[in-house]
Amino acid sequence: MNRHFIALAALILSAAPGFSQDLTQGSWVDLTHPFNADSVYWPTAETFTQTEVFAGHTDGGYFYSAYNFAAAEHGGTHIDAPIHFAEGALKVDELPIGQLVGPGFVIDVSAQAEADVDYQVTAADITGFEAEHGQIPQGAIVLLRTGRAGLYPDRESYMGTAERGEAAVANLHFPGLGLEGATLLVERGIAAVGLDTPSIDHGQSQDFATHVELMTHDIPAFENVADMSGLPATGSTIIALPMKIEGGSGGPLRIVAHLP
Amino acid sequence: MNRHFIALAALILSAAPGFSQDLTQGSWVDLTHPFNADSVYWPTAETFTQTEVFAGHTDGGYFYSAYNFAAAEHGGTHIDAPIHFAEGALKVDELPIGQLVGPGFVIDVSAQAEADVDYQVTAADITGFEAEHGQIPQGAIVLLRTGRAGLYPDRESYMGTAERGEAAVANLHFPGLGLEGATLLVERGIAAVGLDTPSIDHGQSQDFATHVELMTHDIPAFENVADMSGLPATGSTIIALPMKIEGGSGGPLRIVAHLP
Ligand SMILES: [Zn+2]
Ligand SMILES: [Zn+2]
Repeated sequence: MNRHFIALAALILSAAPGFSQDLTQGSWVDLTHPFNADSVYWPTAETFTQTEVFAGHTDGGYFYSAYNFAAAEHGGTHIDAPIHFAEGALKVDELPIGQLVGPGFVIDVSAQAEADVDYQVTAADITGFEAEHGQIPQGAIVLLRTGRAGLYPDRESYMGTAERGEAAVANLHFPGLGLEGATLLVERGIAAVGLDTPSIDHGQSQDFATHVELMTHDIPAFENVADMSGLPATGSTIIALPMKIEGGSGGPLRIVAHLP
Repeated sequence: MNRHFIALAALILSAAPGFSQDLTQGSWVDLTHPFNADSVYWPTAETFTQTEVFAGHTDGGYFYSAYNFAAAEHGGTHIDAPIHFAEGALKVDELPIGQLVGPGFVIDVSAQAEADVDYQVTAADITGFEAEHGQIPQGAIVLLRTGRAGLYPDRESYMGTAERGEAAVANLHFPGLGLEGATLLVERGIAAVGLDTPSIDHGQSQDFATHVELMTHDIPAFENVADMSGLPATGSTIIALPMKIEGGSGGPLRIVAHLP
């Protein structure tokens, strides 16, 4: 090898950081549960409804199908915009696209969640991940895999109760991200965090301290994310695009992962 | 230069096709109109409505905001899934992610649309674009820029009438993709096509022949796409992720472009 060879190789490597991916190659994992009558909503929230407008052959000679739909912003696979729990923070239509696309870091806490349905992901869970995979960088999209996506949409097993209404809230049981874990992720400067349970705070939370901590720092949360078992710990690209509801506190999210 | 040098360069070039982009670099263009009370819907369709559930400080000591919303699938920036006009074709939740991401080809027909509000993009418009930029490849996402996104959401100027109801449909005037143009794009094997008007068929269409042609071939259409003036003719990456409505004929679409 001569000097030109080495210089060229160095130049090309510097121009091709690890995150560069050819989106026409590789594979996609859809991390989104479909919206339907079974979609999981908070016990106090309106659920997803779909109404047929027309489906069949028209007088015009062509086939046609169309529906109306209605829902709460927060249900199914969705985003919490920072305004959801932080006054003056970003609304769902104000989130920069660059914050909704980034390298995925998947932290597997399924063993802890299996042992304790009310588990709160700790700072130690995150630093333990980092000891193996390196420090979580600024702009990362962190996904917490509790392993509970497979229980969705059975509300009894997925969130602790199938009851609806205010009284059911006390019976919610599912894992979430603890406050000290959230604080560490804020320090890391992550772009967004998501998990495969109904809320980034665990089901028994009263003060929603994790929501407040994240959203005060304009970090959105992705909730009811679908099965992450096909994702590597690092090396994926997450693309999470919400419905652009003007002034919205959140909304339906289409979240996908690209694998090289 | 020696043989190794040339071999390495060839290897690296073959592994880095033009579509490869580092999504953490470059810039993003949001091609999505926000959903609000002014969002443009077909004169016969239900419009977008948003209802406040809560916004303010709670008894729990934290700030909280949340809304409900309702709409027809087809309005604002949205996708027509193939099932919308083709029996047995793909529903919105069945579209492969790989078909919703691809290299963008932006065909500017704003001069033609300026001269004729009922203009239908022709096969010659497409082959004229190809003469300058090369043949549109399989998997392309083709965007037709009529230049009318700036009129949105003023329905009178954008679609020819602000009236609502069945009688208003005859007064719709806006450009679309003509049948011979659609047939050529089907031949090219494109992944999807979009434009900055309310419908892929022009406003005066009676038979929706372009919808039928595209959708019979499982090609979705993106409608009411926002301003494309910031996009190059080639070289962008389009990512268009719809709300995942199970069995839906379409729905709200978040469509963005990445520029290297
Ligand atoms: Zn939420
Ligand atoms: Zn449509």
